[in-house]
Amino acid sequence: MLSFSVPTTRHEELLEITPQIEDVVSQAHITEGLCHIFVPHTTCGLTINENADPTVRQDILKGLSIIPEHGFAHAEGNSPAHIKSSLLGHSLTIFVKNSRLALGRWQGIYLAEFDGPRTRKVWVSLRQ
Amino acid sequence: MLSFSVPTTRHEELLEITPQIEDVVSQAHITEGLCHIFVPHTTCGLTINENADPTVRQDILKGLSIIPEHGFAHAEGNSPAHIKSSLLGHSLTIFVKNSRLALGRWQGIYLAEFDGPRTRKVWVSLRQ
Amino acid sequence: MLSFSVPTTRHEELLEITPQIEDVVSQAHITEGLCHIFVPHTTCGLTINENADPTVRQDILKGLSIIPEHGFAHAEGNSPAHIKSSLLGHSLTIFVKNSRLALGRWQGIYLAEFDGPRTRKVWVSLRQ
Repeated sequence: MLSFSVPTTRHEELLEITPQIEDVVSQAHITEGLCHIFVPHTTCGLTINENADPTVRQDILKGLSIIPEHGFAHAEGNSPAHIKSSLLGHSLTIFVKNSRLALGRWQGIYLAEFDGPRTRKVWVSLRQ
Repeated sequence: MLSFSVPTTRHEELLEITPQIEDVVSQAHITEGLCHIFVPHTTCGLTINENADPTVRQDILKGLSIIPEHGFAHAEGNSPAHIKSSLLGHSLTIFVKNSRLALGRWQGIYLAEFDGPRTRKVWVSLRQ
Repeated sequence: MLSFSVPTTRHEELLEITPQIEDVVSQAHITEGLCHIFVPHTTCGLTINENADPTVRQDILKGLSIIPEHGFAHAEGNSPAHIKSSLLGHSLTIFVKNSRLALGRWQGIYLAEFDGPRTRKVWVSLRQ
């Protein structure tokens, strides 16, 4: 299991981490296998989505704003972040093929920050 | 890693792909293991849900229509499809037992099309 | 593949199952690996979220109540439960490190009941 940190810069943000994951894969010398990714947090998540037009990332955050900002019980005030992280989930499983991540043409890997800015950890484990 | 294609026929649709995945599993001669499924797209997803009453599939699409159809920035106009695909996710992990998918009695595997009709690819990888 | 049952006590509930999963891991004598969890149901799901303040669990259920309770086609009347289970998903993949679940400091594993009370099954499979 490998770990790296990413600093987020906004309260809510979809931050691309494909290059960091690609680095882990290329250093692992695995030809075919699986790449498991996990974030050990409860107010950020992981997702795959379009890596071309940046407005898609902005629209995903806007779409998730159907979760109201207020009216929750948790005293820290960040319940929307907890809810959104559960909606996207905290892990991803991606195939490795020819020693590279097997992603679709338009797919990128994103850490979805919902309670930033913070420094987040990303854990990666590769299996042959 | 195996790949097969499925044509979707509507703009939004939950298309059952359990038989195709079962075929992959039965040809793999694995007794116990894991079946990983992945769609290399950003406007469709994967989910497990009831395979008995077809109204459930219709209701899942209706439930996801809480994401507004308009008001997004992405010029292609398919932001709701991007958002819904991230909500369901692009991969599934299902156990294999006695050389078959270990699904619950009412569970089926669905490709969730949100920007069809299109031909979609489904990738499958089995591990012992 | 191991299986255990958990009785839920309310119609909607986030029930912590971290101790049961930890037990499975500790009995498996695996140092490093992966823990795959799956629920063979269509009206409950699995999620990871905060295990400290119990109001977070309550707020997650409240957040998911953006799915309307009525207005669906399925005659059983439990379509919101089907929809919410697909939103959270039916499986989790968690790393195992030093013979223990590698969770973040605030993370717990929850069975998300949306159509209880019922007795639910949880399946667990460990890989080295």
